[in-house]
Amino acid sequence: MAVTATQSTTDLDFVRQLGQQLRVDSIRSSTAAGSGHPTSSMSAADLIAVLISRYLQYDWNNAKNPNNDHLIFSKGHASPLYYAMLKAVGAVTDAEMMTFRQFGSRMQGHPTPQIPWVDVATGSLGQGLPIAVGVALAGMKLDKLPYHVWVLCGDSELAEGSIWEALDKASFYGLSNLTAIFDVNRLGQRGETEYGWSTDIYRRRAESFGCVPIVIDGHEQAAIDRAFGSSLSNTGKPTIIIAKTIKGKGFSEIENKEGWHGKALPPDMAERAISELGGIRHLKVKTSKPDTGKPASGRKDGQADLTMVKLPVYQATDKVATRKAYGDALVALGALPDVVAMDGEVSNSTHADEFAKAYPDRFFEIYIAEQQLVATAVGMSVRGYRPFASTFAAFFSRAYDFIRMAGISQANIRLTGSHAGVEIGQDGPSQMALEDLASLRAVWSSIVLYPCDPNQTAKLTALMAQTDGIVYMRTTRGAYPTIYGPNETFKVGGSKVVRQSPKDRVTLIGAGVLAKKKIPVRVIDLYSVKPVDVKTLREAARVTKGRFVIVEDHYPEGGIGAAVLEALASDEDLKVAHLAVKGLPTSGKPDELMNAAGIGTRQIVAAATKLAAAR
Amino acid sequence: MAVTATQSTTDLDFVRQLGQQLRVDSIRSSTAAGSGHPTSSMSAADLIAVLISRYLQYDWNNAKNPNNDHLIFSKGHASPLYYAMLKAVGAVTDAEMMTFRQFGSRMQGHPTPQIPWVDVATGSLGQGLPIAVGVALAGMKLDKLPYHVWVLCGDSELAEGSIWEALDKASFYGLSNLTAIFDVNRLGQRGETEYGWSTDIYRRRAESFGCVPIVIDGHEQAAIDRAFGSSLSNTGKPTIIIAKTIKGKGFSEIENKEGWHGKALPPDMAERAISELGGIRHLKVKTSKPDTGKPASGRKDGQADLTMVKLPVYQATDKVATRKAYGDALVALGALPDVVAMDGEVSNSTHADEFAKAYPDRFFEIYIAEQQLVATAVGMSVRGYRPFASTFAAFFSRAYDFIRMAGISQANIRLTGSHAGVEIGQDGPSQMALEDLASLRAVWSSIVLYPCDPNQTAKLTALMAQTDGIVYMRTTRGAYPTIYGPNETFKVGGSKVVRQSPKDRVTLIGAGVLAKKKIPVRVIDLYSVKPVDVKTLREAARVTKGRFVIVEDHYPEGGIGAAVLEALASDEDLKVAHLAVKGLPTSGKPDELMNAAGIGTRQIVAAATKLAAAR
Repeated sequence: MAVTATQSTTDLDFVRQLGQQLRVDSIRSSTAAGSGHPTSSMSAADLIAVLISRYLQYDWNNAKNPNNDHLIFSKGHASPLYYAMLKAVGAVTDAEMMTFRQFGSRMQGHPTPQIPWVDVATGSLGQGLPIAVGVALAGMKLDKLPYHVWVLCGDSELAEGSIWEALDKASFYGLSNLTAIFDVNRLGQRGETEYGWSTDIYRRRAESFGCVPIVIDGHEQAAIDRAFGSSLSNTGKPTIIIAKTIKGKGFSEIENKEGWHGKALPPDMAERAISELGGIRHLKVKTSKPDTGKPASGRKDGQADLTMVKLPVYQATDKVATRKAYGDALVALGALPDVVAMDGEVSNSTHADEFAKAYPDRFFEIYIAEQQLVATAVGMSVRGYRPFASTFAAFFSRAYDFIRMAGISQANIRLTGSHAGVEIGQDGPSQMALEDLASLRAVWSSIVLYPCDPNQTAKLTALMAQTDGIVYMRTTRGAYPTIYGPNETFKVGGSKVVRQSPKDRVTLIGAGVLAKKKIPVRVIDLYSVKPVDVKTLREAARVTKGRFVIVEDHYPEGGIGAAVLEALASDEDLKVAHLAVKGLPTSGKPDELMNAAGIGTRQIVAAATKLAAAR
Repeated sequence: MAVTATQSTTDLDFVRQLGQQLRVDSIRSSTAAGSGHPTSSMSAADLIAVLISRYLQYDWNNAKNPNNDHLIFSKGHASPLYYAMLKAVGAVTDAEMMTFRQFGSRMQGHPTPQIPWVDVATGSLGQGLPIAVGVALAGMKLDKLPYHVWVLCGDSELAEGSIWEALDKASFYGLSNLTAIFDVNRLGQRGETEYGWSTDIYRRRAESFGCVPIVIDGHEQAAIDRAFGSSLSNTGKPTIIIAKTIKGKGFSEIENKEGWHGKALPPDMAERAISELGGIRHLKVKTSKPDTGKPASGRKDGQADLTMVKLPVYQATDKVATRKAYGDALVALGALPDVVAMDGEVSNSTHADEFAKAYPDRFFEIYIAEQQLVATAVGMSVRGYRPFASTFAAFFSRAYDFIRMAGISQANIRLTGSHAGVEIGQDGPSQMALEDLASLRAVWSSIVLYPCDPNQTAKLTALMAQTDGIVYMRTTRGAYPTIYGPNETFKVGGSKVVRQSPKDRVTLIGAGVLAKKKIPVRVIDLYSVKPVDVKTLREAARVTKGRFVIVEDHYPEGGIGAAVLEALASDEDLKVAHLAVKGLPTSGKPDELMNAAGIGTRQIVAAATKLAAAR
């Protein structure tokens, strides 16, 4: 049996049929793929059917319409439902939907922005909601447009702390333009979830976190309808719709049964399921078009226009910490209306507070919640802003999974981590980033910058605004001499040969604070750690016969040493002395700690001298 | 004025004096250091004074006494208070306390286990409480000893999702042996915290998360006393004492004032403060000794005795995924009473479920909360167990800051991450660990293992039990041929030369699933990625004149390629072809994705052939 219809009215009987179609299509695509999550899709089918036919305001022909609502599947594994929805609204064909999970298809195992309607990649649970909070924050505070942000969450992901970080910020900022739908189908991957169908637990928690909870039967269309309607009128608070649902709903053989998470139905079962669900349908939903309106912020899509920006300038006699220069430059970048900033309650250390004072409407205090800090940046990136997020470099490690996923989302975010390395001194190892270069280099689409003086920092901060991807800059605590003039130019993938002669016997690489020691060798300031300046490194290798001393305030693995070695891996004749932080650091003065770590001046000189003398 | 007294009674007037002493000493040590957090110490001084004089049961002369209570400063920056407490109980001298933050002193900027009374390093906020939950879980479910776990939290860190992950698990597991003290002093690093003194918000949240909240004035000794007393009798639930306090309490010039976070008082101010606080005292507290008792679990301190373990054995004809062999081996290791396991609701994928079935009393379901997953492992490591935590390798990135801090804590934990690399196929990039080797290699004290067959996996899993540090093993989704016999031996820092002849022209390194391709070259199975087998690599470099083909199912940065290059950095004559995952992967079949990523068989053969032909 196959039903075909186009319906612009949205009576609940149609919605009921639509829900069945979404289930059938979720089964069809996953069975064709031989994998996927049909049962997790079936539990949420009625919720999505009501949403797309009666509430969502979306121009499917123009995913870039700034007035579109946002719909984020935080439970990304319900991708069969997402793609079934795209078919129902006419965004993709049935045939494309059926390419689910095939190599080359846009219908990936978990949704990614390879398709225009997907804001961010999901699939690492507990991330869609935090990012949605960022989107909603942009909608309310920057765009000032009435679009609504809808998020579909699974119940398993409610155990992630990031969900509660997100709800905390959603209520703190009064995001009544946000509705999270908890699809409480009771069953996780390996059995019952922590709280099963105890929706009252979720209700109490949502309420205590400042949201308006509405508990409903997630298969009763009228109740869903009322809940969505109510969520649009919750002034000042986000809404959480806690929907009690049944995993595998609609196919009696597997409804509410364990052992069916993440499994496609075998073809014979799929046939029985489709039959029980009323057969294949091709109903079309006409989603409401959004309002018209323009973002209030004056943001512009496209390249950052730096002609509007007057960067700070430092004199050769100035001693200014790179973190301070970052703050100064960020204020200058505030001239661009799409530059926004957020910080994790350390803005007086990262110097993002300067931006907060100059542009309070475009600064967002996220408090000590680094996952939400990065998620907010990603959400604002979705809305076309240029977010700069900052905290101590060590604490971006708290958000590493968010940064990883931001890469997969092809988000454009800028992260500035201060207080890197043992150089911070007395605070001790918990505050020292010593693995940030390794971990952030390994993120898809990342750029890693590590300036050593204030003029360079200012220029690189401006460059960050112009650069897509996950752009990370490492700044340091202490103030050191200014070595570049204000007219020096820098680029992503560049480096500076600070000192050279044709007779150099050793190349010294020590980005950041270590680049200024007076060693009688070729000195390269490798301020762009990723991508790295292979050409300059090759030339140095040629002149100094492959002899490099690489010094870094970072653990030995995966940092600047690895970056240089990876770049020159296909060259012959390398002989590298690598000085990195050996041993677990303690508290002490910066110089004491650098010497103890094996990256002190004496050790650098010794390594360079030894290598220069080698045959 | 200086008061000296030793007091074994614990009347509240003494406690009041003790609180003042703790404040004075916090000021003295930080002023001597010229940095630190005296005001954050002063707010909590009365809480700690009551605790150590009337509730804490602790044998300061024997920090290893298994019956000791645990006291964890989740707000690690209150270290001046912690060290002042150590002086008051006689664990350290006043002179040692005064070495605060000096190079070589144990009195570090944030507490670390360099001193025996500290369970774990803190200083990255929101971690002490989650780890305390792990300790309390061990106390209740494994040790079955009556010790109590006390945690001091700051209010700023309550914005961290990890706090709520922790409270969720604390109540889920009914940890009435846990008391968290929220020191709500209203002021964070840069101004007011998110909720200031709105203790009612915290009360409602704590209650909704299944804890018993008690709101008190944190400077009223009698109220503190009643709250602690009450917390010891809360059957079945953890207690949260929400103490309204004043930052800088006791020194009128800075009480409740902004701008005094993380700042030592200048000497003249310190003098006035000490005077206002009643001068320098040297009161001694006689803390109650704990009960006697032995852990019920039969755990033994010391080296794992593998003679009790009968590892699984696989035949040459078997095709078994390494993740399956991990599960099998973990069950075998269950013969050791100190082996415990925990998983993030994916145990049927990681195969930790086999252990859960065999040893349900020693398995802990943490659900989808990876930060708490690692924190639980760390907490159980504190109690002398050998924890094995598992989830998808990609999702350990969620706990990267916890893993980083576990390194600083010198914890001994084992992490097994399954589903690494593009090899997982259809699920797509969100589920693929492609940066795990880079990020985990860069963690202090880490060991990184990457087996390629089931017999090897079983042996390495046993080796993990015997190995200290942060021991990470990467397992894969698919089943591949068994290449090692059951009698092969493996070691941390080892490798296997799978194939060799004196005439080899190229060395092929492709740990894990890539090691078995038939290339006419020397093949090294580099199963220990960190530490790496430098000797074997050097020998291979000598024979094959520095020509290496390195293949890895990982992004190009910081993984196996970097490990090899770093190891051979000081050697001359390297010529390396590095094949790693280029481009952002999608969904597809494993072979399709490996070819697309540039790590397919054809590409390996081409690279090896080209390199072999090079001069």
